[in-house]
Amino acid sequence: MVHYNGKKVPSVVIKRLPRYYRYLGELLKQDIKRISSNVLSTKMNVTASQIRQDFNYFGGFGQQGYGYNVEFLYREIGEILGLHEGYKTIIVGAGHLGHALANHSTFEKRGFRLAGIFDIDETIIGKEINGVKIMHIDTLEEFIAQNGIDIAILATPRAVVQDMANRLVACGIKGLWNFSYVELKTDQPVAIENVHLSDSLMTLSYKIKQGDEE
Amino acid sequence: MVHYNGKKVPSVVIKRLPRYYRYLGELLKQDIKRISSNVLSTKMNVTASQIRQDFNYFGGFGQQGYGYNVEFLYREIGEILGLHEGYKTIIVGAGHLGHALANHSTFEKRGFRLAGIFDIDETIIGKEINGVKIMHIDTLEEFIAQNGIDIAILATPRAVVQDMANRLVACGIKGLWNFSYVELKTDQPVAIENVHLSDSLMTLSYKIKQGDEE
Repeated sequence: MVHYNGKKVPSVVIKRLPRYYRYLGELLKQDIKRISSNVLSTKMNVTASQIRQDFNYFGGFGQQGYGYNVEFLYREIGEILGLHEGYKTIIVGAGHLGHALANHSTFEKRGFRLAGIFDIDETIIGKEINGVKIMHIDTLEEFIAQNGIDIAILATPRAVVQDMANRLVACGIKGLWNFSYVELKTDQPVAIENVHLSDSLMTLSYKIKQGDEE
Repeated sequence: MVHYNGKKVPSVVIKRLPRYYRYLGELLKQDIKRISSNVLSTKMNVTASQIRQDFNYFGGFGQQGYGYNVEFLYREIGEILGLHEGYKTIIVGAGHLGHALANHSTFEKRGFRLAGIFDIDETIIGKEINGVKIMHIDTLEEFIAQNGIDIAILATPRAVVQDMANRLVACGIKGLWNFSYVELKTDQPVAIENVHLSDSLMTLSYKIKQGDEE
């Protein structure tokens, strides 16, 4: 289900793109101009041949012998990831998770713009988090229509997340970033990414149990 | 760097274990006793041969023709992931993220026990989140020694996360679950798992950009 220019790309390859992107961003900060797939491989804990295979899904990004041009690669991967689109996001749910996400400075750095936060709690409507206003959920549809919102971050209680998803999909939202442990069902096509924090905790647990330490 | 019984297991395989575990848990709830690798494959969006390869790292878990025993597989994978160890955790940092994580019911369901929360803000010391007390960071070392804490969840501001990691490692903590965008350096072996939320948002962005909708 994950494609690029009509070609099927394995999910594991897609999942590595943000990691490549982050690492290339760090190289850029250090003013490093070129990197070989071997060095990239060591840093990313992926074999060099896997990196070349990964990149081949997207056209290859230049000659392997000579190494990759860091800035070019960073820009290309950012483009493929849609980070130059300036996607506009809203957060639905201004509880602790919504607050934490609104304060997460990395999202803006990656090109996402937080346009609004929605909640049902009258006592916090009109307040701001990180300079972004909390609005009443009753104004959700109107706000999305007027502001061309692309992505909704679902940080609501579990009990209402499916209802919220339905409303958002009906508004033509393009993507749902779902933090609840509910498998969303939608009657119209929409991109969905579920965050399962406990997967990461279980991976840590594995490392402890199996004695894998850094 | 990720091993099982001394054998090297690729990180991508390890990362799939929590997903298998979650899905098997759902099957158990539906009272499903056996599942073929083909059905598991469709649900998990991984090829059946990949699933068999994954399981072979851990001994195979039974015959493929007859299908897998769901309860056995669930228990075995839980064991491998260390979920039966009853790992005791603390949260360092009781801001919005710390609050959100303390209220995250899934962690307890996965066998992790939250024993304490630490902060520096005098006005919240002694309060409780989800029944767990917020204590002053000055008592961190004493608490860990007395309560045999395994895992520390780092939910502090970025500026202090390395200092906190140093203190925790000096106490002999076994695992650090790091939510900050700081690459931790430790002078003693410790399991580390970094959460990069923006990776997940970038994956969603890719799906929107490339028109991959569910």
